[in-house]
Amino acid sequence: MSKGVTPQSENYNTWYTDVVTKADLADYGPVKGTMVVKPYGFAMWDLIKETFDKMIKDTGHLNAYFPLFIPKSFLAKEAEHVEGFAKECAVVTHTRLKSDSKKGIIVDPDSKLEEEVIVRPTSETLIWSMYKKWIQSYRDLPLLINQWANVVRWEMRTRLFLRTTEFLWQEGHTAHATAKEAQEETLLILELYRKLSEDYLAMPVLTGFKSESEKFAGADKTYCIEALMGDKRALQAGTSHNLGQNFARAFDVTFQTKENKEELVYATSWGISTRLVGGVIMTHGDDKGLRLPPKIAPFQVVVVPIFKNEESQEVLIKYLGPILSELKNNGVRVHEDWRKESPGFKFNEWEMKGVPVRLEVGPKDVEKHQAVIARRDSGEKEFVKKDDIVNLIPELLDSIQNNLFEQAKEFRKNNTHTVSTYTEFKDVIKNKGGFIRCGWDGSSETEATIKNETKATIRVIPFDENIKGLNCIFSGKPAKHEVIFAKAY
Amino acid sequence: MSKGVTPQSENYNTWYTDVVTKADLADYGPVKGTMVVKPYGFAMWDLIKETFDKMIKDTGHLNAYFPLFIPKSFLAKEAEHVEGFAKECAVVTHTRLKSDSKKGIIVDPDSKLEEEVIVRPTSETLIWSMYKKWIQSYRDLPLLINQWANVVRWEMRTRLFLRTTEFLWQEGHTAHATAKEAQEETLLILELYRKLSEDYLAMPVLTGFKSESEKFAGADKTYCIEALMGDKRALQAGTSHNLGQNFARAFDVTFQTKENKEELVYATSWGISTRLVGGVIMTHGDDKGLRLPPKIAPFQVVVVPIFKNEESQEVLIKYLGPILSELKNNGVRVHEDWRKESPGFKFNEWEMKGVPVRLEVGPKDVEKHQAVIARRDSGEKEFVKKDDIVNLIPELLDSIQNNLFEQAKEFRKNNTHTVSTYTEFKDVIKNKGGFIRCGWDGSSETEATIKNETKATIRVIPFDENIKGLNCIFSGKPAKHEVIFAKAY
Repeated sequence: MSKGVTPQSENYNTWYTDVVTKADLADYGPVKGTMVVKPYGFAMWDLIKETFDKMIKDTGHLNAYFPLFIPKSFLAKEAEHVEGFAKECAVVTHTRLKSDSKKGIIVDPDSKLEEEVIVRPTSETLIWSMYKKWIQSYRDLPLLINQWANVVRWEMRTRLFLRTTEFLWQEGHTAHATAKEAQEETLLILELYRKLSEDYLAMPVLTGFKSESEKFAGADKTYCIEALMGDKRALQAGTSHNLGQNFARAFDVTFQTKENKEELVYATSWGISTRLVGGVIMTHGDDKGLRLPPKIAPFQVVVVPIFKNEESQEVLIKYLGPILSELKNNGVRVHEDWRKESPGFKFNEWEMKGVPVRLEVGPKDVEKHQAVIARRDSGEKEFVKKDDIVNLIPELLDSIQNNLFEQAKEFRKNNTHTVSTYTEFKDVIKNKGGFIRCGWDGSSETEATIKNETKATIRVIPFDENIKGLNCIFSGKPAKHEVIFAKAY
Repeated sequence: MSKGVTPQSENYNTWYTDVVTKADLADYGPVKGTMVVKPYGFAMWDLIKETFDKMIKDTGHLNAYFPLFIPKSFLAKEAEHVEGFAKECAVVTHTRLKSDSKKGIIVDPDSKLEEEVIVRPTSETLIWSMYKKWIQSYRDLPLLINQWANVVRWEMRTRLFLRTTEFLWQEGHTAHATAKEAQEETLLILELYRKLSEDYLAMPVLTGFKSESEKFAGADKTYCIEALMGDKRALQAGTSHNLGQNFARAFDVTFQTKENKEELVYATSWGISTRLVGGVIMTHGDDKGLRLPPKIAPFQVVVVPIFKNEESQEVLIKYLGPILSELKNNGVRVHEDWRKESPGFKFNEWEMKGVPVRLEVGPKDVEKHQAVIARRDSGEKEFVKKDDIVNLIPELLDSIQNNLFEQAKEFRKNNTHTVSTYTEFKDVIKNKGGFIRCGWDGSSETEATIKNETKATIRVIPFDENIKGLNCIFSGKPAKHEVIFAKAY
């Protein structure tokens, strides 16, 4: 546990896996591509979930729960949708096991289902089959529903948190009377995603929309937040889709308007997942392990008392007692590490786990009415007067939260390139990485060729694009959009 | 929506389904036996979840998440366990769909899995396969882990909340160094279940343990909380299992003791599910619909302002504003119903939805500095002075919580029978229902015969059993246990 991680510079992928496992965030499940989220990793996800759940409730959304199982035929009702998900569907075909004298436990062939059932890869089809029952009139709209759930996409190449066969997420599914309302909802959620990423995960994101080839299967338009990881690859961190009337059409969901007309309902859907935990690791982590933004750190402060025997331990308990109670009462998440391991062992462990602040106290500190405070973000250590600790720590947590965000923004700035030729483009993608901001002629052929030749894709067409005087980096034609290219997870 | 429910006395099953659907708690999913938990029902489950989550965190348990998919071979490792679950397993056999020119979308035969995968019916096997990796020494124990998850048991006869193919639950899985600790954990959790049921759901429960034939497949001993529903049938509302070393043996999980010996780990597991929502409905509901205990009511107070035009609405908004703000600031869950439907329509709707307190205010009440408060539990209405409302409501909520619990206890008391002959036993089961408390000789033959002849089963062997001078109700032999018989859900 106390052994270090592979340095990022040596092998970023190995560094990542080392951090995930050594910081006790997750483990591999027995079925290929599945993940066990261990308590420390789950506590991070729980804080992200709690934060976002409040945001969507404050904007009028309600939680519900829809079934895991979708009839196979439903998926086929929206042509693009089935195209997008058919190749990664877990299919349930039987419902019983039985003993076989030769082979042991086998699937009972007599339990074959008449219609196979799909384990949800996403729930648009199932939910719109229900909305058909629930929506009759404009009075039933808008319907603003979210669910926190597990979904399954049978992936070939998996990586803990970033791409797993099963993952946890929230999926919002809203129904509206007008195209305008649906568009407003799509953008409202995108803004909440930006806020969650930047203000809580300290992960700067670009906001904008996807090209046709990168949009969600079944959407009219997909908006996204896009982040830059420590290895200069992009991470799609959340998507918000304006589904237009596509799913209403597929499931025949109409409503009576105020003017007594029958119209198809407008839809949105949007999701963020446990992938965000991977984003936090790769945005802030260093060669000592995790560095957690205080707002989503399971422990914001770890206390490491330094004692040699029960007597000196008693002294520390008395000394620390009132300070820690006050901190906890103020809502600071404090963890006390009274184990018998050496201070050095504990320091390494909590650095690996990314706890923002470490409070060290030994017998001499008691005599001097002080403590040592160490910041995980900068590694700085300083002596602090006993009476100042309670007031200082919340300030310090704010400062760490801001510093991590500023560092990440600086990193992104230093790794966002503008290029003027395709040769330069290829050179940057191959040798530097990061975001490239450039012109694109809007053709999917151009996009596909660039992807084939460089593995870079259009991550986002940013809201602040400016095509004045801009030409396509590939074709030289006048740019239709200014876009962000990068290699992505 | 405003239409009433079938009276309980006419058909209890129809009454139940009416309440679930008309109070907007749940709906049927498209795959047979699956359930959609609608926002109002989900809010109840969320409050139950929040309450219990705090209880287990306060007792040192941590949340984690384990995969949905279990290799088929795992289930077979514990003989009783596979026996118990083999007949209701959803089996994933393929991972892709494809287009077929004749049949449309079909399961791609080339995507057949080498080893089929089971959708978890419960997670003992998967979790103990992980514990094998995580537990080496006594220092790794105890391991106190819980997960909130969905599980699947392919049921033939389903009923919303009570028995569905997929349901939501929590499953705790703990690992211990000694049999004594495992037993203490099993009983600690049982006590938390009792507390949750009685102090929050206002649902009185009997506590004790199960007979061999009713215990969990793979447990040494199963403890349970058992409630009595409004139709005088029993509901198993939560179970806590001492698994002994059964799963450690099946998955070869040993640890190094302090004395440097190798020993098998001791285990417990325990669960409560969305079934509890069904328990609340059937414990408290009446012919007007739900009656919710305030502690788990999504809305504790519903405000129904009575106004004829915008002007009178304005007056009410001003009058109510400060009162409602103060209530909300005090943590009372208040819902304001400003829709244009008639007061009568709204009264019916909120009675159906079981909101504990209704606050009615019309123009005359404003003049008289008063309001009308109606209790859902008793139907009582009274005028209350404006200045008293804020203080009165929390008291009223307490009183309703207590009253519902007392009523349910009274009901159980009136429907718990002692009998002295088997003829009398059969008569009570057939014509009266409820709990029968009597002697049992401890033989599984007796138990099976009684079940065959009467459909009554041993629900629980209560902790407070007293066999002094007691004989078996069936065989007349000296009783080994005093037990509770009933027909059950």
